[in-house]
Amino acid sequence: MAVKGIILADRVRGDKGLVLDPLTRKIYLELTVPGPEDNRGDVDRLVDALQPELEGTVTVPLELMFGLSAVLREGDWRVTATVGGMVPGVWNLVTVEPGDTTSRHFGLAVDIGTTTVVVYLVDMHDGRVLGTAADYNGQVVFGEDVLTRIYLSATPEGLRQLQEAVVQTLNGLIERLAAEHNILPAEISAVAVGANSTMVHLFLGLDPSRICMAPYIPVVNNPGLVPAGKLGLAVNPLAPVYCLPSVGSYLGGDIIGGVLASGMHRSPELSLFVDIGTNGEIVMGNRDWLVGCAGAAGPALEGGVVANGMRAEPGAVDSVSIDARTGQVHYTTIGGAPPAGICGSGLVDCLAEMLLAGIIDRAGRFKNGQREFVVVPARDSATGKDIVVTQVDIHNFMRTKGAVNAALELLVESVGCQLGDIRRFYAAGAFGHYLHLESAITIGLYPDLPREKMIRLGNASGEGARLVLLSGQKRREAESIARNITYFELNASQVFMNKFVGSKFLPHTNLDYFPTVKEKLMKRGLFAS
Amino acid sequence: MAVKGIILADRVRGDKGLVLDPLTRKIYLELTVPGPEDNRGDVDRLVDALQPELEGTVTVPLELMFGLSAVLREGDWRVTATVGGMVPGVWNLVTVEPGDTTSRHFGLAVDIGTTTVVVYLVDMHDGRVLGTAADYNGQVVFGEDVLTRIYLSATPEGLRQLQEAVVQTLNGLIERLAAEHNILPAEISAVAVGANSTMVHLFLGLDPSRICMAPYIPVVNNPGLVPAGKLGLAVNPLAPVYCLPSVGSYLGGDIIGGVLASGMHRSPELSLFVDIGTNGEIVMGNRDWLVGCAGAAGPALEGGVVANGMRAEPGAVDSVSIDARTGQVHYTTIGGAPPAGICGSGLVDCLAEMLLAGIIDRAGRFKNGQREFVVVPARDSATGKDIVVTQVDIHNFMRTKGAVNAALELLVESVGCQLGDIRRFYAAGAFGHYLHLESAITIGLYPDLPREKMIRLGNASGEGARLVLLSGQKRREAESIARNITYFELNASQVFMNKFVGSKFLPHTNLDYFPTVKEKLMKRGLFAS
Repeated sequence: MAVKGIILADRVRGDKGLVLDPLTRKIYLELTVPGPEDNRGDVDRLVDALQPELEGTVTVPLELMFGLSAVLREGDWRVTATVGGMVPGVWNLVTVEPGDTTSRHFGLAVDIGTTTVVVYLVDMHDGRVLGTAADYNGQVVFGEDVLTRIYLSATPEGLRQLQEAVVQTLNGLIERLAAEHNILPAEISAVAVGANSTMVHLFLGLDPSRICMAPYIPVVNNPGLVPAGKLGLAVNPLAPVYCLPSVGSYLGGDIIGGVLASGMHRSPELSLFVDIGTNGEIVMGNRDWLVGCAGAAGPALEGGVVANGMRAEPGAVDSVSIDARTGQVHYTTIGGAPPAGICGSGLVDCLAEMLLAGIIDRAGRFKNGQREFVVVPARDSATGKDIVVTQVDIHNFMRTKGAVNAALELLVESVGCQLGDIRRFYAAGAFGHYLHLESAITIGLYPDLPREKMIRLGNASGEGARLVLLSGQKRREAESIARNITYFELNASQVFMNKFVGSKFLPHTNLDYFPTVKEKLMKRGLFAS
Repeated sequence: MAVKGIILADRVRGDKGLVLDPLTRKIYLELTVPGPEDNRGDVDRLVDALQPELEGTVTVPLELMFGLSAVLREGDWRVTATVGGMVPGVWNLVTVEPGDTTSRHFGLAVDIGTTTVVVYLVDMHDGRVLGTAADYNGQVVFGEDVLTRIYLSATPEGLRQLQEAVVQTLNGLIERLAAEHNILPAEISAVAVGANSTMVHLFLGLDPSRICMAPYIPVVNNPGLVPAGKLGLAVNPLAPVYCLPSVGSYLGGDIIGGVLASGMHRSPELSLFVDIGTNGEIVMGNRDWLVGCAGAAGPALEGGVVANGMRAEPGAVDSVSIDARTGQVHYTTIGGAPPAGICGSGLVDCLAEMLLAGIIDRAGRFKNGQREFVVVPARDSATGKDIVVTQVDIHNFMRTKGAVNAALELLVESVGCQLGDIRRFYAAGAFGHYLHLESAITIGLYPDLPREKMIRLGNASGEGARLVLLSGQKRREAESIARNITYFELNASQVFMNKFVGSKFLPHTNLDYFPTVKEKLMKRGLFAS
């Protein structure tokens, strides 16, 4: 089944200032024709011609030597070489094609989420996204959540199954995009991946088991470049695959990619980056310093835990408003389909509207003693049953929100500044993209900042992948971000637990942190200062 | 069947001045133990610890990431890393072992000849050869001569068979040496190979067909480093395999290795390097310049073409002397076994002795009209038949000798010097090792120089391999030799053909080139000035 891809951050922010220096380069060469006076080997002749075009050493993998002689002669000594930078100063030959094929130069930016995989076909000439395709991560059939998959990967067979599952998903998307854009999958000569640490491990076939055991040590944070063929990816088998580096087990390459896409690491202003999905990750800082933390967030916001929760698929209630006077509920569903359940953005809307309508109090309790709120009555729903938000749902959600609040406050205090010092707020991820900003602020999930300073990044992980696919400077920035973020391990922090306990109210225990929400509540007589 | 290995050149020349800087290094590391304050990934932790020990970047192949976490913990964070230099400034991880294993560091120097393969197990600590093993090249069953094998390799299946055959030979030798020296084959972490261009192609599985077609363009002269696993070699699969570079199709890495081992490229004196085997190769020069040429030489000196020729195996007549007065023949055989045939050194001895005994004239003709000379009468031979040297054998040999003379004179003239300017003569290869110097000079195969300036190098190709295995400086020297030799293509040279025609006499048309032989002949009344 196909899912809808989400837009890339560059649609919001633009590509200004991005110097194209992609993971691979294509170079057209007119070689001197061999003769009695020039009997260099075919490989040596190619290397001699390439070397002056590149700074550094050129290496030719044995696999390419096999067919090289035929290609050089087929192209009558006019060929196009594709090279990939392995490490600074070293170029690996990726492929050689007869003739001048420099106009066809393709790369892939990939976002591997626990649930969804999105692939962007990129024209390496101008950085344009030629096409997007998305699908559920094939690993989902082995387990919806990360822990189940980590458990399964404890056996070599399980690990192999999970590795193959995600690669199969990717290959399906690659095939689809290639066909749509009339290219051969083998013409894709570079891949960049944004994914969390567990997803990177499973993608590379590495055992992720220590990621969830103290002291949470992954096999690798920065795997460098891996040839696509070693992973089974259906692109050029020598295409370099670059995974955005992780900071640790819980702050992955997806987040580093998002920070990179936001540009906050280059700004003098204090920024806050939040990605709430299956996990919640927060990064705060500016061009001088960065701090970050992460924790499990998702269950309360996704299908499975919420009584009538479902994924953001057609039929999911994705926006809710409640008339405070009449109590009447208005909602929309994805695709306009008959309502079958409620997704994250619908839930957040509903909670905010219930608070503002006085249906629940600031502690999240139903005021009239009811146990649930009917969003869609049975007669209108696709399931034939009421679609409801329960007291349990609300309390689950408040724990998630409390964790986000606590983490954020911990970060703020750790660097000796205040919430009010934050000048920019970036919401990343699919959830951040579809969530309604006002509702998220009303219930305290997002901070209460001037709205023009609050920016939705869309698929920031995919955009980060696109940036490192296209730019060596961006790869260096990503590695510098990963190296320089000070990571706070929340699970080990007593301060976090204290703050968590203190975050029991909507939008917050301390309403002064949320001045616009305070004002709204006061206006409606729901709070007296 | 096993054949006897021959001694390495360093037994003659010594290792003075060789700075050990082998293809791989072993580094013992005591890593910081991970904890809540230091949750770097296992790979990253290792790389961070290695980087300061090495100049440049460290890369970790995906294959090694799989098992790394277990090794680090098994060694309680004390491990020994083996790294190989891929290109200057880049180090590839080859293996990681628990504990301190720096005392066990092994490499392999390999000489792949068309007929014989010799393997030297080298202690990378001090450069010592721990053991030697030799065997016939398994490709021999597909064809004794190079052309047959090139022909066979025209099909992918034939190429595969030949590649596997030589690797199988090598693996048998590796297994034998490893068992003898109580090491595991996987402990061998680097391999250096000296071989002619065709043998390198077949070893790497590359199509050698263009080597024997004008303009004689090989697939590759300098293949760089190839991981052993890609070739099927039974050592550490990530061990870098370095093939000594070739100059062209007919001046291979075996010769470059020999020149390197001779040291002639660093001497101010004019030196001559000659390797006569299946092909004959000649390099002349000094530290400022080098010229070289090559041509088919072997058949006349090996079994197959010579009527009663055989390989240098037990039972081969390997030395001959003839009493000029009585005509009585004395001979020895390899291993003292009953004589079954005559090998190259026996043939050269026999020709020289026949010339000095007046049995043949300087044109190589039997003086008394006979058609053959009986070296071993039927009653003494293992075959029950006479072992003879025939008029045809003599004329075949004189063509070979004439080619060597012509090539040498061409080189000398091309650089505007004279034979008499040569200060040092190096005889390489098995033939050069076992040949009797006086006989070779008498018949004009070797030049007539002061004997103390004539040096047998033994297996110079194997020694060259050992040097590049042990020293980056030697690898750079080998590459510089290969780059700087001016190669003369004899097949294309009319001058060569003219000289060849002019070399019809023993030891030479111009006897003044061979003053000591002239004196001997005059003393015996066989030549009047």
